[in-house]
Amino acid sequence: MKTAEKILLTALELFNEHGENSVTSVDIAMELDISPGNLYYHYKGKEVIIDALVALHKKQMMSVLSRDVVTALRAEDVFYYLYILIEKFHLFRFLYRSQADLLEKYPGVARPVKQLLLTVDSQLRAMLDRLIDDNSLAATPSEKNLLAETITMILTQTFQADQIKRHQDAESIHYHALSMIMVIVLPRLTLAKSDIDVIQIAIDSHTMANLSSLVPDYLEAR
Amino acid sequence: MKTAEKILLTALELFNEHGENSVTSVDIAMELDISPGNLYYHYKGKEVIIDALVALHKKQMMSVLSRDVVTALRAEDVFYYLYILIEKFHLFRFLYRSQADLLEKYPGVARPVKQLLLTVDSQLRAMLDRLIDDNSLAATPSEKNLLAETITMILTQTFQADQIKRHQDAESIHYHALSMIMVIVLPRLTLAKSDIDVIQIAIDSHTMANLSSLVPDYLEAR
Repeated sequence: MKTAEKILLTALELFNEHGENSVTSVDIAMELDISPGNLYYHYKGKEVIIDALVALHKKQMMSVLSRDVVTALRAEDVFYYLYILIEKFHLFRFLYRSQADLLEKYPGVARPVKQLLLTVDSQLRAMLDRLIDDNSLAATPSEKNLLAETITMILTQTFQADQIKRHQDAESIHYHALSMIMVIVLPRLTLAKSDIDVIQIAIDSHTMANLSSLVPDYLEAR
Repeated sequence: MKTAEKILLTALELFNEHGENSVTSVDIAMELDISPGNLYYHYKGKEVIIDALVALHKKQMMSVLSRDVVTALRAEDVFYYLYILIEKFHLFRFLYRSQADLLEKYPGVARPVKQLLLTVDSQLRAMLDRLIDDNSLAATPSEKNLLAETITMILTQTFQADQIKRHQDAESIHYHALSMIMVIVLPRLTLAKSDIDVIQIAIDSHTMANLSSLVPDYLEAR
């Protein structure tokens, strides 16, 4: 792995663990066992590192959020798809930890982050619209919009609450976020009874292991 | 109003508007048109002001969260009760803006804030339990716990997202938070059709005006 890439991954890990505020460029250099001068050669300060991380995050998200993927989703794929979104947000959770402060501190990333959140919201609405058109989901247009907002909030904020309350492994944190979403979507879904049962068991057992049988191919390739 | 009280209210207003991070003791003194020395006579620094604000917030919340109030709630009162919680959280929204950072910066308030959030969560569970016992709400124990968590997240985090997206008046922000909660609770409620219709109209019209007819006396007195 090239040094520049190593710097990004190490910065990401430290930001996620301790919050962007508590981590300096020197901390990142020390963690990598390189000199601050060497780090500076690759990235001229923390702001440039944050810019690069946001670009990486946006690129990852955009590939999953493409209209093609969203409109190909069947009702039984929705939770698996949401699980993928959860994993991808969790990977860059430091951005959403003290979001308002971070965007004020780094005005350069305010626009891409806001754009990303608007895209998430609009693609979630498209996904819910598709389910409503299929008669798989019961929701009025207002309800659909509010559901999309609440799901976006869970996707970006649940990791914060988890970090404040207790330390958990990444997988439990992902399942937890997914379960929160399932609970709000499930009573509106008109899936087959057998599919509903699988989801119900997943919520009650705090695991999604049994859901992986439902993974559609076009999602697994990603 | 006494100077000490004025200082608290002004600090609260500035923190809510600009974030605690961007407001200094001198800013608070200037806004009040008093000398920094006079402010220091009443509160020895920002930390003491934050302590006092958290104590005030906790006292307000605890009176609404008392077990007596929660167990007296009927199904048709629930949304009005939640509206009161929303208003009270909105009043101290700066505490939840960059929560993780704030609690690290002021370790003295970490405990009371976490205790408060645990109380909110446990009282929401008690409220949902009561509805389940009455056969007014359909939810398994896991679902009930996840619903309580999501409601707590909406109560504390929705104002942040609203502030990032656009400026709105307080009332719209409150109704917005309430609508998010209604959408996730409504499909599980077994209220009379006429009550459900009232709630449905409230969600679609983005107003709770027509719900005020449902205000129970023991809530209005508060």
